[in-house]
Amino acid sequence: MNGAQALLQTLADAGIEVCFTNPGTSEMHFVAALDSEPRMRAVLALFEGVATGAADGYARMADKPAATLLHLGCGLGNGLANLHNARKGRVPVVNIVGDHASYHTQYDAQLQSDIETVARNVSPGFVRTSASTAQLSQDAVDAVQAAQGLPGQVATLILPADVSWGEGGQPCAMPARRAAPEADDAVVQAIARAIQTGGKTALLLGGQALREPGLLAAARIAAHAGVKLLAEVFPTRLTRGAGLPSVERIAYLAEMAGVQLADIQQLILVDAKAPVSFFAYPGKPSYLVPSSCTVHTLTTPEQDAAASLSKLAAALGANQAQPQLQTVQRPGRPRGKLTAPKVCKAVGHLLPENAILIDEAITSGLMLGAMTAGCPRHDLITLTGGAIGQGLPNAVGAAVACPDRPVVALIGDGTAMYTIQALWSMARENLHVISIIFNNASYSVLNVELERVGAGGGGDKARAQLDLDGPRLNFAQLAQGMGVHAVRTNSAEDFTKALEYALATPGPHLIEALVPESLSGAKRRVLPWLLRSLPSLPRPLAQALKRKLAP
Amino acid sequence: MNGAQALLQTLADAGIEVCFTNPGTSEMHFVAALDSEPRMRAVLALFEGVATGAADGYARMADKPAATLLHLGCGLGNGLANLHNARKGRVPVVNIVGDHASYHTQYDAQLQSDIETVARNVSPGFVRTSASTAQLSQDAVDAVQAAQGLPGQVATLILPADVSWGEGGQPCAMPARRAAPEADDAVVQAIARAIQTGGKTALLLGGQALREPGLLAAARIAAHAGVKLLAEVFPTRLTRGAGLPSVERIAYLAEMAGVQLADIQQLILVDAKAPVSFFAYPGKPSYLVPSSCTVHTLTTPEQDAAASLSKLAAALGANQAQPQLQTVQRPGRPRGKLTAPKVCKAVGHLLPENAILIDEAITSGLMLGAMTAGCPRHDLITLTGGAIGQGLPNAVGAAVACPDRPVVALIGDGTAMYTIQALWSMARENLHVISIIFNNASYSVLNVELERVGAGGGGDKARAQLDLDGPRLNFAQLAQGMGVHAVRTNSAEDFTKALEYALATPGPHLIEALVPESLSGAKRRVLPWLLRSLPSLPRPLAQALKRKLAP
Repeated sequence: MNGAQALLQTLADAGIEVCFTNPGTSEMHFVAALDSEPRMRAVLALFEGVATGAADGYARMADKPAATLLHLGCGLGNGLANLHNARKGRVPVVNIVGDHASYHTQYDAQLQSDIETVARNVSPGFVRTSASTAQLSQDAVDAVQAAQGLPGQVATLILPADVSWGEGGQPCAMPARRAAPEADDAVVQAIARAIQTGGKTALLLGGQALREPGLLAAARIAAHAGVKLLAEVFPTRLTRGAGLPSVERIAYLAEMAGVQLADIQQLILVDAKAPVSFFAYPGKPSYLVPSSCTVHTLTTPEQDAAASLSKLAAALGANQAQPQLQTVQRPGRPRGKLTAPKVCKAVGHLLPENAILIDEAITSGLMLGAMTAGCPRHDLITLTGGAIGQGLPNAVGAAVACPDRPVVALIGDGTAMYTIQALWSMARENLHVISIIFNNASYSVLNVELERVGAGGGGDKARAQLDLDGPRLNFAQLAQGMGVHAVRTNSAEDFTKALEYALATPGPHLIEALVPESLSGAKRRVLPWLLRSLPSLPRPLAQALKRKLAP
Repeated sequence: MNGAQALLQTLADAGIEVCFTNPGTSEMHFVAALDSEPRMRAVLALFEGVATGAADGYARMADKPAATLLHLGCGLGNGLANLHNARKGRVPVVNIVGDHASYHTQYDAQLQSDIETVARNVSPGFVRTSASTAQLSQDAVDAVQAAQGLPGQVATLILPADVSWGEGGQPCAMPARRAAPEADDAVVQAIARAIQTGGKTALLLGGQALREPGLLAAARIAAHAGVKLLAEVFPTRLTRGAGLPSVERIAYLAEMAGVQLADIQQLILVDAKAPVSFFAYPGKPSYLVPSSCTVHTLTTPEQDAAASLSKLAAALGANQAQPQLQTVQRPGRPRGKLTAPKVCKAVGHLLPENAILIDEAITSGLMLGAMTAGCPRHDLITLTGGAIGQGLPNAVGAAVACPDRPVVALIGDGTAMYTIQALWSMARENLHVISIIFNNASYSVLNVELERVGAGGGGDKARAQLDLDGPRLNFAQLAQGMGVHAVRTNSAEDFTKALEYALATPGPHLIEALVPESLSGAKRRVLPWLLRSLPSLPRPLAQALKRKLAP
């Protein structure tokens, strides 16, 4: 048995069933060994960013890692942005990065580069170059253990070609997983006392706390003790919809987050970070928690968030409290000229039970949360690391993980182009993914950001950097060129009909939505002014404005 | 004047006229400052790999660096593969990588990552995070100096948002460039003696030696002293065609390179590395120079290759020798069902004077060198670092650098998909680029490599990793979706007509060539066997076979 065969058996024994691949010559023995391991499915991507983003989306839904197969430092580089998103979302991924044979690196051949250096950017916790065929399987076990620990992380195993092709490979078994610890009793008691005696309190839920058990425990606490439930701005996976507790996500715009947090006197972190501004803006604070607010940590990402929330509920005597649950509520069928909010409305009108919703729609998706809040139960996946180009690859992985659940991915035109090659993998694997592309011919959010950072007033050259017109992309043609059924729509009626058809018809679909910018013209000019004014407005007015701007 | 404005003026003063951009929020002040510097052209790319590959292609043709504008560590990651190609080709590039404001990094916001770590993979010689607005312009001067030294390199300047937006920027002037030194007299004399007294000698030309002055000096030496002229396997830029000396490139396949080098007793390196195998193969040597061959170094990449070759010619008394020049010779018009060699033939039939030819056609381009050898003078750009996805972005940059020269890029289907977004930039800038995509629905070279590494005999899963069918890509549709005029052809007549039209019609064109794999079926199976047999065959037979396989 060669190294590659032993590696594949070890991975499969460890429960890894899917490898998202973009191989080259140095990975040919791994590729040849695929047929020796019937438990391993190999899904080819035409670009590494698709493979890594698919592994991210897969793990978010399967709750276990997939492997990637990447070609040397350049392949890893191409996959880096979506591995960054996985890292920030604490999503487990096991990268297998092929390298030259160990004796070949000294010759500095064309593709030679320092792979470990690149890997450290996304795999600070586990980067290892396997030193021999005999050690390879143990290295793989260590990588899988590192990846799927709590918190999940990206583990990178570098596989020299001679380690892969060498004979004498021996599969290795995974040790049993240790259960994650709960929050300490003393911490739980102290937080319970703080809730009972302190001022206005919010639980800020993130990571594992945003699944059903954590949400239900948190909602019992909320019902019993009157605390507010907040969620981190970009959840890895948020289970939501009718019958589940609803939580208010921290706003992307720091000014609005300020409104959300303004009257909170105690913030309790549950697998979440204290909120900070996504970017820095001249003269504005980066840390968004008011100085008058005390921050407590119930659980770190190393701990079991749901169990700790139950323990806190018990300490508060909230175990029997009736959590407030979202009622069933769908928006009506949209009519007339298509706009981004109408697209969100149509999605809310039709989203089926158990759908997986992927939101990388940036400004065009502003209404998505409100429009789908009362839809049947679904999971929402968001842009954890801010590296755009995540949504379409995530959809590939989510659909591979959950073949019985429809995936609806809402993607901005700018973001779609980073990893547009994902459409081909959807076609090849015949995945039931509906990609909705908002074509507003603009990096719309950057037009807003240009004003927010105080760099407005640029001329034609600056504006051309934010504008995707001239020529306008045709996503229906792009999809058809990759074998995906696609339509282009500019009326709400056509869009809704196309979405109905796509939901009812297995296989991949792309629906291009020709829409105006959500924040254009006057709105865009007035927004930065409004945002700047928020802190000085009377609080009810500020809150009403915030709800109007980002419901 | 803020930092960004001073930076742009400094870059323009240093002769940098183009910036290939894909900005985000942290780069908005740089974007806004573009309109303050009329000498700077900003070319937007929809993906960072296009921006970096365009900067590479630009510098190869303009002989000076362009800047890139990238968005934090993830943007740099997306651009890494084409920066790798630039690094390996010793091509100057100045990366401007935006970062969070310096005080913001402590909060580990979503897009925070270790940029310097990633940058070191491609910029080992110059990575700097600018510490203040006052220092920024000097940092930029240092970056440009590092990039455009001899050898050229990728320099990365990390620009925190607050350094960019801070007031008090002061442009800085570039010091005069120092001329690169020639080879030492003693080295030249020793090599001249070796040529006069030693056995069969070859000059291996690389880098700067492959432009006209170097080639002419080398050809005088060849004519006078009977030495052979070889070129490195993947030249950064090779000036060739009728009226210029022709050089034989080292073959990609190590076995064939072995045949080329078998009887060489002295190898003289001129801005080139001693040949090594592109990949390692079980049981085969990585270092390709025969043990009986002595290696001399005339110039390192730090030295002036052309002047050193002239000096060597003078030392040999070869200054008046008549170099052997390539005669005018074009293949005829191809007919019948389209194949990859017929595409190369049509290109040879029509290639206009002063064209820029980009070869990333992998197996489909095997005949390109032979078919275009006698075409009018042109420049050839190749895959220096082996990181595929280079050709289309290089074409963008080459066309921006040389608006009066047609660019003809021959690209494999697999490679095209890595950076297909380049087509949009061609349309937006209305560049006269003709992208020829060989659609054989396969990573054809990997089918060969699978056999060569001894990993053949894989089953359906292995084969599916190398196969781009199911669904077959439609590149004409992809191009049309990005606003590029495109046709799909499967006869030599249609292809040739489309190429004629594209050459005569300004603006971008894509011609999709539906072709069978160049190395399919029996050929593919017999090739590894043939290659293994080459060393044991009688030399004339081995040479004839090599010429047949890779002319």
